Amino acid sequence: MNIPTKNNLKRIVIIGAGFAGLQVAKKLRRDKFQVVLIDKNNYHTFQPLLYQVATAGLEPDSIAHSIRNIFKKTKNFFFRLAYVHYINTDKQKIYTNVGNLNYDYLIVATGSVTNYFGNKNIESFSLPMKSIPEALNIRSLILQDFESALLTKDIKEKERLMTFVIVGGGPTGVELAGSLAEMKKYILPHDYPDLDIQSMNIYLLQATSRLLDGMSKKSANEAYKNLKELGVIIWLNCLVKDYDGKIVFLEKNLKIESSNVIWAAGVKGAIIKGFLKEDLMKNRILVDDYLKTIKYENVFAIGDVAYMKSYPNGHPMTAQPAIQEGNYLAKNFNQDLNNRKDIKPFVYKNLGSMATIGRNKAVCDFPYFKLKGFLAWIIWMFVHLVSLNGVRNRVIALTNWIIQYLNYNKSVRLIIRPFYRKNHLKKS
Amino acid sequence: MNIPTKNNLKRIVIIGAGFAGLQVAKKLRRDKFQVVLIDKNNYHTFQPLLYQVATAGLEPDSIAHSIRNIFKKTKNFFFRLAYVHYINTDKQKIYTNVGNLNYDYLIVATGSVTNYFGNKNIESFSLPMKSIPEALNIRSLILQDFESALLTKDIKEKERLMTFVIVGGGPTGVELAGSLAEMKKYILPHDYPDLDIQSMNIYLLQATSRLLDGMSKKSANEAYKNLKELGVIIWLNCLVKDYDGKIVFLEKNLKIESSNVIWAAGVKGAIIKGFLKEDLMKNRILVDDYLKTIKYENVFAIGDVAYMKSYPNGHPMTAQPAIQEGNYLAKNFNQDLNNRKDIKPFVYKNLGSMATIGRNKAVCDFPYFKLKGFLAWIIWMFVHLVSLNGVRNRVIALTNWIIQYLNYNKSVRLIIRPFYRKNHLKKS
Repeated sequence: MNIPTKNNLKRIVIIGAGFAGLQVAKKLRRDKFQVVLIDKNNYHTFQPLLYQVATAGLEPDSIAHSIRNIFKKTKNFFFRLAYVHYINTDKQKIYTNVGNLNYDYLIVATGSVTNYFGNKNIESFSLPMKSIPEALNIRSLILQDFESALLTKDIKEKERLMTFVIVGGGPTGVELAGSLAEMKKYILPHDYPDLDIQSMNIYLLQATSRLLDGMSKKSANEAYKNLKELGVIIWLNCLVKDYDGKIVFLEKNLKIESSNVIWAAGVKGAIIKGFLKEDLMKNRILVDDYLKTIKYENVFAIGDVAYMKSYPNGHPMTAQPAIQEGNYLAKNFNQDLNNRKDIKPFVYKNLGSMATIGRNKAVCDFPYFKLKGFLAWIIWMFVHLVSLNGVRNRVIALTNWIIQYLNYNKSVRLIIRPFYRKNHLKKS
Repeated sequence: MNIPTKNNLKRIVIIGAGFAGLQVAKKLRRDKFQVVLIDKNNYHTFQPLLYQVATAGLEPDSIAHSIRNIFKKTKNFFFRLAYVHYINTDKQKIYTNVGNLNYDYLIVATGSVTNYFGNKNIESFSLPMKSIPEALNIRSLILQDFESALLTKDIKEKERLMTFVIVGGGPTGVELAGSLAEMKKYILPHDYPDLDIQSMNIYLLQATSRLLDGMSKKSANEAYKNLKELGVIIWLNCLVKDYDGKIVFLEKNLKIESSNVIWAAGVKGAIIKGFLKEDLMKNRILVDDYLKTIKYENVFAIGDVAYMKSYPNGHPMTAQPAIQEGNYLAKNFNQDLNNRKDIKPFVYKNLGSMATIGRNKAVCDFPYFKLKGFLAWIIWMFVHLVSLNGVRNRVIALTNWIIQYLNYNKSVRLIIRPFYRKNHLKKS
């Protein structure tokens, strides 16, 4: 892969530039290690704001940050745009689409992928939202559907085009539903005066008995109330069994006709080939209290893909544990703690969680108190702004939010690359 | 096409939402006419800034403006996202991919397309820059090429990847060359410390004996000097004969090896099927002094696609004549002047022209004086900012420019959708 070897420096290869991989790469001492970061994109994606890209509130470029820009002028650091095919822990080697590379230490930070729970139909016909191109596909599709709804004389077809089903009532599903409901309220009636926007339906389907499973009951109830007020149809205890591109099949013979199903029902670890079955737990890589894999002395895993044995059900697959794990691991490496006995185990510190439902509406659970409404919304914005990478992205995102707040608009409703449905649906 | 007919209102159909089409649509009185605007995109593109999208200076969404947003709350106005296949001037009907539509008056404002002068190879292998997706392709390709150059051990291949050939020394070519040269100077050395960025070559090839043919000799010389200082290799009187994806073939057996040819050498009118040979002149639609087509009483043409017989060589194919023609035609319609004898012919008023070469560098030709350097650059920015559609886009563009100015950075160097070369090149 054309990376010079330095005899005096051990090489650490990090796979994945999400929250975890980026953090450990930033914090590792480059006077002690040669750091190679590999990702299939040349940018880091700020996933918590993907839903705003999908609903035309933010341009994609404001939640993406060039990895080379983050690490410019950084010594002993190498970025490679590559897709890792598999790893060989015996040979200490990774194999990618642009060549092979040896490592002294490997840090797997591959994150997670959308989990369809094995249903191929749902995988084919629904839209995931884990990456910027996927969020842009949703943006294009929403807008294309309304253009199509204007033209069709088939009432059934029009209803299907104007019905949006979001599966999964976690933060992603809740925030997306809220944002879509605001489009319905403030924007679409002006954009499509010929359409009866009231007949647009937004469903939020959740498999368990409450929204926001990871948050407090109080916040979940507040989110439920806010979404109801915005006109979102929320079905709890509702399992999606199948989807054929036109009809969502639920339990008890219930059905929803919709051309637009957004799948936010779950994620699973993005495992690389080369790990054995016993290395894994619930589709994530088993790690000990020091984030080291169980069997391989020089292989570590952090972020969504890591499953710490001692923590019940593993850490939440969110940004916070990922960043904390990245920090912790870098510190251990920098202090050479991996070779010492007095190393302290990783302890996840839950700083709280939050979700926004719409204009002036959010819920925050902090360790000692809970917040809702306007103040929660302001805190939500502040936390997300300072978490964005780079001054430019912060300024651009803030500018967008201020303008949106003032004029009730989401300006970037552009179909820059149209999204085409699977073939046999195009005919319908 | 599902548009209600109102008996008391004549229907004006406008094809194309570029500068001309957008302007006439904005200015037509909707109490007198039903206005239908058709475009193949749901946004208006601010083409003069495409080169900044191509060189990672601006995000695409800041130079695109949702057409429905521009016309929201506008009565008797209909937008349709459609591609016009052909028109029938006898039946007064247009035929599109989403249905047919009758018109009382038709305004053709289809603009222009890239002109390859019949060379199929150049059309296949070079990159045009007339639309946002095309500009994004160039952005992706530049970045992908540097990633590839890092990996290859083939010196020839590395040179080809790092050689950029811009064909056409008009404003587009000049601005693109300047912007690319600034990437070479300020950004790429930090992003790719392992590459010898000095070996990156930027060629600007111009068929005539000077740059910026439409501007003054003084401004052309200044642009030439500025580009030279930035390290651009400028070849004048240089005709490109062919390009096979690897080698640019010039006259006198000269060759340049390059994987990246950007074709900015010319445009031609985007003619719709349904016009006869005698309706056209130099691939544009012939119009009289009132922007009416010669043969059809109720068909008009404005913008790049219109060729006014009485004006030598037709008006320049730029934004200014397009906007002025849109204004003029709307005024005639609004005052019902098309049916009167005392209607005044259209007179194009040249307000000047400008081009920017880079940081602090631009040239402006105004009717009574010429400017260069910092002041010209400030004026260039001001004129382009106020010409952008919508407050949001202006604020976002200005914010980007200020941040770029302060930190010498072009932040949006993201490969969001990779660009794939033609098949048989991928192997090389």
